[in-house]
Amino acid sequence: MSIRDIFLNLFDELTQVLIKELPNLDQFTETSKEYLEKLIRYNVPKGKLTRGLGLVNTFVTIVQTQRKVTKTEIRLSMILGWCIEWLQASLLVADDYLDQSLTRRGQKCWYRVVGIRAINDALLLESCLYVFLKKYFKKYSSYRVLLELFLSVTFKTELGQTLDLSSVDVKEKPIIEKFNVTYYNQIVRLKTSYYSFYLPVSLGIALSSDFVDLGIDLSQLLEQVKNPLIKMGELFQVQDDYLDNYGETKIIGKHGTDIQDGKCSWLIVNALEIANEKQKEILINNYSKQDKECIEKIKTIYDELNLKKLFIEYQEKSFQEIQLMITKLTHLPKSIFENLLNKIYKRQK
Amino acid sequence: MSIRDIFLNLFDELTQVLIKELPNLDQFTETSKEYLEKLIRYNVPKGKLTRGLGLVNTFVTIVQTQRKVTKTEIRLSMILGWCIEWLQASLLVADDYLDQSLTRRGQKCWYRVVGIRAINDALLLESCLYVFLKKYFKKYSSYRVLLELFLSVTFKTELGQTLDLSSVDVKEKPIIEKFNVTYYNQIVRLKTSYYSFYLPVSLGIALSSDFVDLGIDLSQLLEQVKNPLIKMGELFQVQDDYLDNYGETKIIGKHGTDIQDGKCSWLIVNALEIANEKQKEILINNYSKQDKECIEKIKTIYDELNLKKLFIEYQEKSFQEIQLMITKLTHLPKSIFENLLNKIYKRQK
Repeated sequence: MSIRDIFLNLFDELTQVLIKELPNLDQFTETSKEYLEKLIRYNVPKGKLTRGLGLVNTFVTIVQTQRKVTKTEIRLSMILGWCIEWLQASLLVADDYLDQSLTRRGQKCWYRVVGIRAINDALLLESCLYVFLKKYFKKYSSYRVLLELFLSVTFKTELGQTLDLSSVDVKEKPIIEKFNVTYYNQIVRLKTSYYSFYLPVSLGIALSSDFVDLGIDLSQLLEQVKNPLIKMGELFQVQDDYLDNYGETKIIGKHGTDIQDGKCSWLIVNALEIANEKQKEILINNYSKQDKECIEKIKTIYDELNLKKLFIEYQEKSFQEIQLMITKLTHLPKSIFENLLNKIYKRQK
Repeated sequence: MSIRDIFLNLFDELTQVLIKELPNLDQFTETSKEYLEKLIRYNVPKGKLTRGLGLVNTFVTIVQTQRKVTKTEIRLSMILGWCIEWLQASLLVADDYLDQSLTRRGQKCWYRVVGIRAINDALLLESCLYVFLKKYFKKYSSYRVLLELFLSVTFKTELGQTLDLSSVDVKEKPIIEKFNVTYYNQIVRLKTSYYSFYLPVSLGIALSSDFVDLGIDLSQLLEQVKNPLIKMGELFQVQDDYLDNYGETKIIGKHGTDIQDGKCSWLIVNALEIANEKQKEILINNYSKQDKECIEKIKTIYDELNLKKLFIEYQEKSFQEIQLMITKLTHLPKSIFENLLNKIYKRQK
């Protein structure tokens, strides 16, 4: 069985544990238990699982520098991996509602299935992970750090969302004058990098500190890995934005909609930076409109400005910078970071 | 200065701390900081503060059984008290959005000020409390228990919300057939009792364990106080439901709307329990309608069934039961619980 299959099997087990251990079982009706299970099965396991599996890989790689890792230890790291996937599910359910998105992971967004109560469901999904944390990690000395990592990264993600939401006005129309590269980077770091790149690796490191001697203070180590991981998150999001317009629809599996949705995307912020006055005017007047002609006008300017080339240069430069950052890391196998970086470098989807 | 004034002064200090200590300050724009401050000032400090002050009272009473409590200790308990008020603010912002309520604490509900992003704001308010917890309580041995109490009670409240939301259909219409006394009690316990009664007292006890010897295992003690507090929460909510229809508008400061809103209230569940077939039909056909005549029909049946008397009997019985439960408590000053009970017994608002 592949690591991925073992990981997926564990999901069923955890879901059952959760349903069975619901606080005050007698107080909780059958219908509500069924509802909770449906909510979990619909939203938690259907993603790419990169964050959860990234944690497992980090943990296993570190332990194996010193000795063979046991099945029990892998299992434990997988439980923690699922906790990130639960958090991710919570963030996506809330996000889709806020963005009024239509589909997610090839199915209708959850709020379109259950309505407004999806808000409470997002909160529930988040809370579940703390049930698992308490149940499985309470006895480990890293427990407190695990808790704090989840809580602080969640806060950062919400602050990123705050920043993102500040770029649209009360009528949900983007305030395009606010878009610039600095602002864009701030949103991406807070909203994406922390939970997608920093969280899996830092949790993997923290957990490993219970099983092997890291030879350095844990909090120092976590501080050290922050920058390269945040930088990877940035590259990842820039690629996402690039592929939304320049990616192959067949490979990505969807048509990009960032232009008509008025997203604060890497493409628009860079276009605004380098456009001449006339182009700038066209960008401002046509961005965030559903009309096909408006979309085409934006795309034409993107091409005129040669954003494709700009992106390739950015990707190259970013790749080099991150590689350099990785060489400076100590006390950890560099392969953890190299693997992550190679997975995203030049990705087509 | 009264305890309440000292408590309120601390709010300003905490808000400033939070804004100044925002993670990655340089990444966070001025506008967003202003937004966060506005969010906090609008939603956190304007309630009755009973939960926050209840915690302070619990803590002070316990410490003073053994020695004089210091100013620094009171201050610390007040910070923890504000953490509950922050949680309460988060719950109310989300709740008001879910219920599409109009006003809260004499002002427009927050989502009516900022729109859909109120959802993210509810999440932000919750996360703030964990920033305070880490900053001020990290060094205490009760830190882990404090964290767990907040997390588990939040989960319970969300489960209660789940149960509550399960009593309306997709079109937000109440499924009145589901209403019964057991179901009602389940909702109230989970959605109200835990965070309103159990949380303040249990946090006060947990914090006090760092300053005085409780003479008993903390978790045992927390288990022991759970039932009387949950029971008090039940009484409190039943009173709320009763006053919504039978309270003096002048004293309560608002007109009750539970009938037209289709709330799963103590009055309707009990009416359905004791009504004859004809009355039951009228209840089912007229509940949850804005029409004045419909509302009047419900009120008439409430009177016919003499729910006023039923309530007075319930309140009396509940009061006696809780008093009995209090006498059985050990290792804690009973006045903590007697004071709480006396504050709600026969309350008019």
